[in-house]
Amino acid sequence: MKATLIHGVHDIRVESVPDPKLHEPTDAIVRVVRAAICGSDLWPYGSAPTNEIGAPIGHEFLGVVEETGTEVPGLVPGDLVVAPFAFADNTCEFCRRGLHTSCPNGGVWGVAGVGGGQAEAVLVPQAQGSLVKLPVETDSALLTSLLTLADVFSTGHHAAVTAGVSSGDSLTVVGDGAVGLLGVLAAKRLGAEQVVLMGRHAARTDLGRKFGATDVVPERGQEGIARVRELTGGHGTARVLEAVGTEAALHMALGAARDGGVVSRVGVPQYDQGPIGFQAMFGRNLTLTGGPAPARAYIETLLPDILSGCVEPGRVFDRTVGLDDVADGYRAMADRQALKVLVRP
Amino acid sequence: MKATLIHGVHDIRVESVPDPKLHEPTDAIVRVVRAAICGSDLWPYGSAPTNEIGAPIGHEFLGVVEETGTEVPGLVPGDLVVAPFAFADNTCEFCRRGLHTSCPNGGVWGVAGVGGGQAEAVLVPQAQGSLVKLPVETDSALLTSLLTLADVFSTGHHAAVTAGVSSGDSLTVVGDGAVGLLGVLAAKRLGAEQVVLMGRHAARTDLGRKFGATDVVPERGQEGIARVRELTGGHGTARVLEAVGTEAALHMALGAARDGGVVSRVGVPQYDQGPIGFQAMFGRNLTLTGGPAPARAYIETLLPDILSGCVEPGRVFDRTVGLDDVADGYRAMADRQALKVLVRP
Repeated sequence: MKATLIHGVHDIRVESVPDPKLHEPTDAIVRVVRAAICGSDLWPYGSAPTNEIGAPIGHEFLGVVEETGTEVPGLVPGDLVVAPFAFADNTCEFCRRGLHTSCPNGGVWGVAGVGGGQAEAVLVPQAQGSLVKLPVETDSALLTSLLTLADVFSTGHHAAVTAGVSSGDSLTVVGDGAVGLLGVLAAKRLGAEQVVLMGRHAARTDLGRKFGATDVVPERGQEGIARVRELTGGHGTARVLEAVGTEAALHMALGAARDGGVVSRVGVPQYDQGPIGFQAMFGRNLTLTGGPAPARAYIETLLPDILSGCVEPGRVFDRTVGLDDVADGYRAMADRQALKVLVRP
Repeated sequence: MKATLIHGVHDIRVESVPDPKLHEPTDAIVRVVRAAICGSDLWPYGSAPTNEIGAPIGHEFLGVVEETGTEVPGLVPGDLVVAPFAFADNTCEFCRRGLHTSCPNGGVWGVAGVGGGQAEAVLVPQAQGSLVKLPVETDSALLTSLLTLADVFSTGHHAAVTAGVSSGDSLTVVGDGAVGLLGVLAAKRLGAEQVVLMGRHAARTDLGRKFGATDVVPERGQEGIARVRELTGGHGTARVLEAVGTEAALHMALGAARDGGVVSRVGVPQYDQGPIGFQAMFGRNLTLTGGPAPARAYIETLLPDILSGCVEPGRVFDRTVGLDDVADGYRAMADRQALKVLVRP
């Protein structure tokens, strides 16, 4: 079959690899119907060490079950399913608490012998725990929105949930990438009233307004913080979603937070140390939370609103490529020509 | 009157200073009956720049109202009151949310012309909002426990509250100073079942056991973390109170936390940058919270259990000095000869 492999910086190739085969009784094989390129795929795209063998990549996909092991009682060939970006057994003590990203039997796509999602088919470990059936046909117009359950919408939702967003809240979202925009949508879905979106790409912030952002702040740094405070009665907002992952974004997030507030990070941090001393955090009783979204925990919660058309998170996709052209998709996202790229194998 | 001034490293002097006088209609003057030396006073004790004039110090005291301004309707001379370590108007939007440490009309003792608590008398700004009447006599045996409402017990309680401790919980407390020990007491009061206390001073950890610690871990660093995990089913505890303030303590706290857990800091951080990257925090969905305790918000909550004798936080005091001997008290605490020193002017 064909699969996307990354061989180094800006070196994405679609190559022939062996078809996936069942190894464990808990495995399934899924033929990919829709996949995507994630903002977080751009980190290795910009920094991966040269690797002649190539490493599989991609962690967002939905598709049709082709084959299952003997311990996947809930699925049969032909089922349309979505996979969360981290697979998990859905039975351990972490999964039971909704933290599937810490499942001891879990893992992520593209490492430790598991294939990536930007491929014709994927071997899914812990299939019973990981895959969620989608009650639509494979030609449904809802597929793009359903695909966001794999990562971006679930991640935006995780940011909003861990920040404690609830009805009537004011909040700030740092970042106008797909996750930031779906953080806006998730926060509105949870009842937020004022949503200040920090971003400077008009096409993206326009979509943010459609998702419910009430204010857009294109300024950055101290200027951006000052603008958020102006818009929010002088003190910033009690909840801030940080959907970028850079230290500059974290500084803006902390600055936009009201004393006693919560900053939730869902952008993968590109730093090891950060400003958590007296001035930046402690003296203001700020809380720093977030992390990789346990997407599996949220899929059933978010699914009905997609099926009913209440929310359309799939609007973040503004370009579609075939699998053979996935390298073009990476280039378009890295050059900010595309917000988020859909891959149709 | 006599007041304690700090002139530099290890240079504590009791000197004659002008008697405090009312400046604002919201002021009161309180004659100090009991004061204390705080673990956080040891930071300037060990590092204050040389200062010939001297700076007032001390932020824990209770005493008798001597005089009030015209806008302190709730107090009259003769009232016995306790002062939180940060004064506040108790009416602004931060105070109404229980975050008195961020009150724009608030402040702390010993800075900006406000005297310190280790003195014969103190000028109290925002007296109506700050001072809480104590329904006991000035010779009550409860005074030492009531004094802990000013800071240490309220701070231990803040750690437990912001960490989200509730009935049946397991938690870890890093640090066997007075705040750590009162974090144990506060957590037990909130219904915690297993309380692992990390500390290596037997006299202190013995008191920790009396306050409700179920396990004591004297080991530090990775060894200490491994021991906590052994005691807690392999994964650490969902709630950790960090009551020291050093980077080493923060590392232990993060290591002792279960994935998805909360680390609450109440030890004043002696660092500006900390380990908040993917490995240390983000990938594990850890939450970092805490800060200076809004003691004023907690006094009415904690008072009844002290009055009834349910809790005896005053047991952290193991030495008493007169005001003239306050320098001996600092020395004893810095040398770990005393856990916490009571000052009787």
